[in-house]
Amino acid sequence: MPQLILLRHGQSQWNLENRFTGWWDVDVTEKGIEEARAAGRLMKEKGIDADLCFTSLQSRAIKTLNLALEEMDRLWLPVEKNYRLNERHYGGLTGLNKQETRDKHGDEQVHIWRRSFDTPPPPMAADSEYQMSSDPRYKGIEVPATESLKDTITRVLPYWKTRIAPELQGGKRVLISAHGNSLRALVKHLSNIADDEITGLEIPTGQPIIYNLDGDLNEIERYYLSER
Amino acid sequence: MPQLILLRHGQSQWNLENRFTGWWDVDVTEKGIEEARAAGRLMKEKGIDADLCFTSLQSRAIKTLNLALEEMDRLWLPVEKNYRLNERHYGGLTGLNKQETRDKHGDEQVHIWRRSFDTPPPPMAADSEYQMSSDPRYKGIEVPATESLKDTITRVLPYWKTRIAPELQGGKRVLISAHGNSLRALVKHLSNIADDEITGLEIPTGQPIIYNLDGDLNEIERYYLSER
Repeated sequence: MPQLILLRHGQSQWNLENRFTGWWDVDVTEKGIEEARAAGRLMKEKGIDADLCFTSLQSRAIKTLNLALEEMDRLWLPVEKNYRLNERHYGGLTGLNKQETRDKHGDEQVHIWRRSFDTPPPPMAADSEYQMSSDPRYKGIEVPATESLKDTITRVLPYWKTRIAPELQGGKRVLISAHGNSLRALVKHLSNIADDEITGLEIPTGQPIIYNLDGDLNEIERYYLSER
Repeated sequence: MPQLILLRHGQSQWNLENRFTGWWDVDVTEKGIEEARAAGRLMKEKGIDADLCFTSLQSRAIKTLNLALEEMDRLWLPVEKNYRLNERHYGGLTGLNKQETRDKHGDEQVHIWRRSFDTPPPPMAADSEYQMSSDPRYKGIEVPATESLKDTITRVLPYWKTRIAPELQGGKRVLISAHGNSLRALVKHLSNIADDEITGLEIPTGQPIIYNLDGDLNEIERYYLSER
């Protein structure tokens, strides 16, 4: 039975400050480091293991994975990194905290962006201090100017289908360390969640989510490892 | 001009205790962690960068790489891990400190093993507490019972030739985080060092070694980054 583990990165500095982060490369906090280590210890204690790992190109997901793997004595596992597992790109909201966003755009508009499936925030300005188009990690990749959740799903799923799903179907146990919205994309796909429901699904930081899947990679069961 | 960076892992607990380590998976010390971070900071400061990394299946080399990459803001680089970059397997000497080895085998024999190019130590006993043949990281790999430096070179070079050299020749800058003897194997090959000289070449922990190579991957120059 194919088994998949999803892990959202531990708390980042901008999670703590309630700022829209998206593709900006913010580090994990001390609490985030401890969450990542605790996730690894929990997996080890519960006998949850992996053969292969996937993560984004963002430090907070990579560090979370490295810390969890260290606790699992699995630093030696193969790890593949790809921008398709990056967080949703928040466009012009990147760097703003909740209050700044409300002041700038109004409560109603913020609510729409937070809850809409397919309305992207305004694009990031070409001269934004958070521009990432010249970051060497994205060489050869067209960095989006903004993304709706739908756009994020459209980015994530081809990678799932071509790189991750075949490994699961080939008998490998897979661990994915990623972000709130790239994981929502996977959960929506695997658990067949409606567009207007997925925007409200919260994925907690540092909590391994276990998927037991059938041969066609449909959900048999999904649970937080901490609850077993 | 192809550029290669070699990095020996930071001090391990058994480096500190002067014990033969080989394939046993010993962690780095606090000093080793600091050496790894300092190596990353030095590379960043000197403008030394990589496109692709290789390391062994051993935690001390992987952690050293992860810590250095974090300091370089390069956690997102692709990393390939392979047992062929592991340390020399010290067979029945694994776990013994210098004094225990002398007491058990005599000064003269120890000197022969330390300095000989092609004399392996006695094989590891099948019931040794340091047996690694059932370690899941070596599934599908024949774990050696012991290795001479010559045996280590014979293990390392096919990986160099098939995986690392083509990347350098394709224009990628490569960083290898590995071990005293797997790095000796590479230095011997690249710098054309004689059998009886290579056994005496010490490779310090946490010191990036820079190789500038010609198109056929012969050494143009080799230096410790800390000396430039």
